[in-house]
Amino acid sequence: MVKGLMSVLLVLVAVSSSFGKPEKNSSAKKEKKLPETLSRGWGDELTWTQTYEEALFRARSSNKPLMVIHHLDACPHSQAMKQIFANNKEIQKMAGEDFILLNLVFETSDKHLAPDGQYVPRFIFVDPSLTVRADITGRYGNRLYAYEPADLDLLISNMKKAKKLLKTEL
Amino acid sequence: MVKGLMSVLLVLVAVSSSFGKPEKNSSAKKEKKLPETLSRGWGDELTWTQTYEEALFRARSSNKPLMVIHHLDACPHSQAMKQIFANNKEIQKMAGEDFILLNLVFETSDKHLAPDGQYVPRFIFVDPSLTVRADITGRYGNRLYAYEPADLDLLISNMKKAKKLLKTEL
Repeated sequence: MVKGLMSVLLVLVAVSSSFGKPEKNSSAKKEKKLPETLSRGWGDELTWTQTYEEALFRARSSNKPLMVIHHLDACPHSQAMKQIFANNKEIQKMAGEDFILLNLVFETSDKHLAPDGQYVPRFIFVDPSLTVRADITGRYGNRLYAYEPADLDLLISNMKKAKKLLKTEL
Repeated sequence: MVKGLMSVLLVLVAVSSSFGKPEKNSSAKKEKKLPETLSRGWGDELTWTQTYEEALFRARSSNKPLMVIHHLDACPHSQAMKQIFANNKEIQKMAGEDFILLNLVFETSDKHLAPDGQYVPRFIFVDPSLTVRADITGRYGNRLYAYEPADLDLLISNMKKAKKLLKTEL
């Protein structure tokens, strides 16, 4: 038997306090239920990757930037951003055409995805060269990658910024 | 900007040769499409976790063993096991009641999930103490965690073995 997941465990302990209640769909329903989706309401018609590893692979192979959205069902700010995000045509179009997409309710063990800490909602862009775009920030000094619904134009502008790749390969 | 994802990249390069063609659902469909599911056909009525981090958290907090299934759409052995797995009532019942479930088409960066290499289909159990159960193996010496459809009874027996937890907490 192999032991050695403690570093992962430490990260989990760090985030587990945010999870006061389990997700609705993890309750044991006896009735036939719809399968869970990767979109989680952020845009059902978009293609969402499952894991960070998959997302990096697809960003690199498609030469498209990756947008990682950290969120929580129990967080009203996350829910408000999701509504805005899912219902804005410009965002949905750009997300679908120009981005690899990943939404996560659990943190990864990669510290580069939390340049100034773990909080939600948090929007991090990753260049297809696999460089985290820590330079693409929102307007809050204490939570650089957070956006409120009022910051929609800034998010759109930052998506456009992320589309300008760091390296252009022929 | 932060650089430093090279270790992840190396893992990705190692597996990328397996991915000759992209998944069907990543092609740009203009028609309304159904959202992608976490079950991927391994049991639509079961609750599937999204990421390894989430799966470990849920295994630990629920004190249930985790079953991780690595598979590929393009692999006929994976497809055959999926058919068997999804249609076997005993497996589906036990999976739904007693296990935290994760199916992955991309490898994680955790080497403990690949005790004897990265191949598919591969069934790895993890105890809720977060110990990979490298002792629970199939019948193939060169691919210890692979199962063929003919090995169904062994898989069921191994699921029962995984249910006997390493540590029993009161």
